[in-house]
Amino acid sequence: MSETIRVDAGEMESVLNRLMLQYGAGELNARAAASIFTLNSADGVPSHGLNRVLRTLEYIEAGHINPGASCSVMSSGQANMVLDGNLGLGMVNAALAIDKACELAGQFGIGVVSLHNTNHWMRGGAYGWQAANRGFLAICWSNTCPNMVPWGGERAVIGNNPLVLAAPRGDGRHVVLDSAMSQFSYGRMQAAAEAGERLPFPGGWSAEGELTDDPAEVMDTFKAVPMGYWKGSGLAILLDLIGGLAAGGNTTSDVGRKYQAEMGLTQVMIAIKPQLAGAAADALVEQVLADVAGSGADGQVRYPGQREYAARQESARQGILADRDVWEAVLAKLRPE
Amino acid sequence: MSETIRVDAGEMESVLNRLMLQYGAGELNARAAASIFTLNSADGVPSHGLNRVLRTLEYIEAGHINPGASCSVMSSGQANMVLDGNLGLGMVNAALAIDKACELAGQFGIGVVSLHNTNHWMRGGAYGWQAANRGFLAICWSNTCPNMVPWGGERAVIGNNPLVLAAPRGDGRHVVLDSAMSQFSYGRMQAAAEAGERLPFPGGWSAEGELTDDPAEVMDTFKAVPMGYWKGSGLAILLDLIGGLAAGGNTTSDVGRKYQAEMGLTQVMIAIKPQLAGAAADALVEQVLADVAGSGADGQVRYPGQREYAARQESARQGILADRDVWEAVLAKLRPE
Repeated sequence: MSETIRVDAGEMESVLNRLMLQYGAGELNARAAASIFTLNSADGVPSHGLNRVLRTLEYIEAGHINPGASCSVMSSGQANMVLDGNLGLGMVNAALAIDKACELAGQFGIGVVSLHNTNHWMRGGAYGWQAANRGFLAICWSNTCPNMVPWGGERAVIGNNPLVLAAPRGDGRHVVLDSAMSQFSYGRMQAAAEAGERLPFPGGWSAEGELTDDPAEVMDTFKAVPMGYWKGSGLAILLDLIGGLAAGGNTTSDVGRKYQAEMGLTQVMIAIKPQLAGAAADALVEQVLADVAGSGADGQVRYPGQREYAARQESARQGILADRDVWEAVLAKLRPE
Repeated sequence: MSETIRVDAGEMESVLNRLMLQYGAGELNARAAASIFTLNSADGVPSHGLNRVLRTLEYIEAGHINPGASCSVMSSGQANMVLDGNLGLGMVNAALAIDKACELAGQFGIGVVSLHNTNHWMRGGAYGWQAANRGFLAICWSNTCPNMVPWGGERAVIGNNPLVLAAPRGDGRHVVLDSAMSQFSYGRMQAAAEAGERLPFPGGWSAEGELTDDPAEVMDTFKAVPMGYWKGSGLAILLDLIGGLAAGGNTTSDVGRKYQAEMGLTQVMIAIKPQLAGAAADALVEQVLADVAGSGADGQVRYPGQREYAARQESARQGILADRDVWEAVLAKLRPE
């Protein structure tokens, strides 16, 4: 990694918008994709923001992602809608799906939109924030390609299927969890590997079949260990099955057999209208988070979403942190206008 | 623990039914409670079956549980219903709530029933099986009293809020996960402590603030460690917040401040109508489970619910495994008819 610089959010979004247009995304898709990439970097998750742009362009060039595609409705029955992502841009499809789920929840009290035949949603947390911004509770997940070993097994046949849970607050400091079912996300392991650091706990299996805290080894074997061992293993299996059955879409097993790349994924977006709203809701959340923060030494216990919110504020004030080489490589892809 | 015996399922259910009637449950509640206690023992989870009966009677005698209460509807808007459990028997309320959620899902494609002011649901998995028996996907959870330490903290201020996920199969061999957000449930730790065994991984914090694999120490401090460390911690916080906001009910924090016992809980039951059904659905599930089973040595990798289903079959053939002392203590509570 090279020097870290600050890039103005408006500039980053505008550059990415032009780039996505150049790559055939069409106006609406380009704007949505640029906005989500930029938000993810602003929130301190560049692994699924700016640092992921070049790989997305490669996927477009390889034909894994159809940048001009948009979702079509497969079936729609009251509060339950199934969308075909038509192998479009995953973050564009996901943003549309959670938006639609919120709309259904506004009408029916709860709504589910499941997406099949879609692509990597980048940072799942973005859709939790999106639902919370509209005042809804959210439960969302995606499956992945096979990248995790079931507890007791030796081969990576399940996905680390990230799960997102969100609860809104009136002032926008929502509580949003974005958690892969592996002990560490591959993004986190890649960052540690690039920094030459060990993981604080074993993150997966070595080529010799031993648990290892060397992130490079796990990146190599692609055999992550489930969080909580058998627990994350079981959660990942069930999230995959529920998604597959709810959407009639590919399971992790299907993705592994059909494709050489991580594509054709299945996602589920559930939005729930809270019974409590306004000051009573904020007081409830405040009390829980005060307990959590007060359970240890000052500043030692964070709540889910706290870091992302702080990063976003800082990005707005000072510009978005970016790796200079990555930023320049992205700029180099731009054709002169 | 004393000798293990086999008790006929019909006999166990009939004894528990009489007992619950004696303790004021009323006909419907007594039948539902007896059926769930018996099922839990039949499924190999006596910690939330027969072994939990005496404590439930104590809770009734202490006034924590009102055995004659039934749920009342707090609010109902299309696919989203909120019930007041009126501090009734938790398993009776939970069974009614998941049933209602399935009914809503049949009508709207998805349904959520949230329950506040209810009691311990015993084994959450029972409601996953119940939804799957009706052909629905399910996501259910309960909060608990404060019994787990947030990652980075020192005091137990969050609950180990069990989460249940279920996917149906046509032949009844459903895939059902029932997982507390702690690395080990207190039921599992109690069993290990009684057997004089260590846990395979650290399960919580000792009085000296060290991670320990001695289950008795954790039973003592009541400071379980979250599964996957920060991951289970975040999940538990969000499940509690979503439940509290969805139901307008007590959070773990409220339970800890209001009550000396684990009561007045909040639960959420979501049922989803699958897009796929019949042979196509069964083929999807079969493929995933075949991959999982085939990822390691023969018989080494189980899927969630496999053990419970096998135990249930064996219980049906040979009677339900029971601890003789526990069974006799339960029988001793029966007044002659």
